[in-house]
Amino acid sequence: MKDQNCIFCKIANGEIPSRTIYEDEQFRIFLDLAPASKGHALIVPKEHYANLFVLPDELAADAMRLAKRQAADMKEKLCCDGFQLVQNNGESAGQTVFHFHLHLIPRYRNDGQTIAWEPGNLSAEELDAVKAQILS
Amino acid sequence: MKDQNCIFCKIANGEIPSRTIYEDEQFRIFLDLAPASKGHALIVPKEHYANLFVLPDELAADAMRLAKRQAADMKEKLCCDGFQLVQNNGESAGQTVFHFHLHLIPRYRNDGQTIAWEPGNLSAEELDAVKAQILS
Repeated sequence: MKDQNCIFCKIANGEIPSRTIYEDEQFRIFLDLAPASKGHALIVPKEHYANLFVLPDELAADAMRLAKRQAADMKEKLCCDGFQLVQNNGESAGQTVFHFHLHLIPRYRNDGQTIAWEPGNLSAEELDAVKAQILS
Repeated sequence: MKDQNCIFCKIANGEIPSRTIYEDEQFRIFLDLAPASKGHALIVPKEHYANLFVLPDELAADAMRLAKRQAADMKEKLCCDGFQLVQNNGESAGQTVFHFHLHLIPRYRNDGQTIAWEPGNLSAEELDAVKAQILS
């Protein structure tokens, strides 16, 4: 299934050009135009799935296998020091294009980015309550 | 293989207690003690692998299948608005425990977190050069 209004459907299927660094029957990997770092790329399935929740299990698994292989290749070619995978679902999670994508972000010492969060400070009782709610 | 000095080996294998929300033969999922948000949890394999680069392909694929399932369950139980997956490799990527782990981060409107990056501004020529380097 494709979504005619989805820019990632068009990029993934080659209707809109991109700086593609990998392509197979299921996925395209292309460079982000506003990269967090040198080599920042996106793994995008050719079929339209809005997010992780609706992505078929096997496509999720294949995306991760591909991320691992691509990260290893980019580490060698770009000589990055580290690597982050980020996958956002929903506006509150920073998702801006509603077609599943997995960010591949090579990291370098002193690249000026901090992709992290403020550590929370919950009591033991509060953490116990969260666990209970998840297991309810 | 276990690493006797690795805290995540000890947690994953039950030597150190944790607020476990899921466990099977391969993985444990437990709540982060300094959570980015309510429900922030870590998927950790029971065997010791320092990062994504040395994780077996099948374990990477299984971790993603599990992340998807767990995210769906947490979305229902916690009524979060969004969900982020983050996986860090190397100090420059913010990895602090050198045992592969995948962050499951439920997101909520107004939860006060921004887990993102400063968008870069590269010229077409610079992006072409990065692509060429990756494909070299």
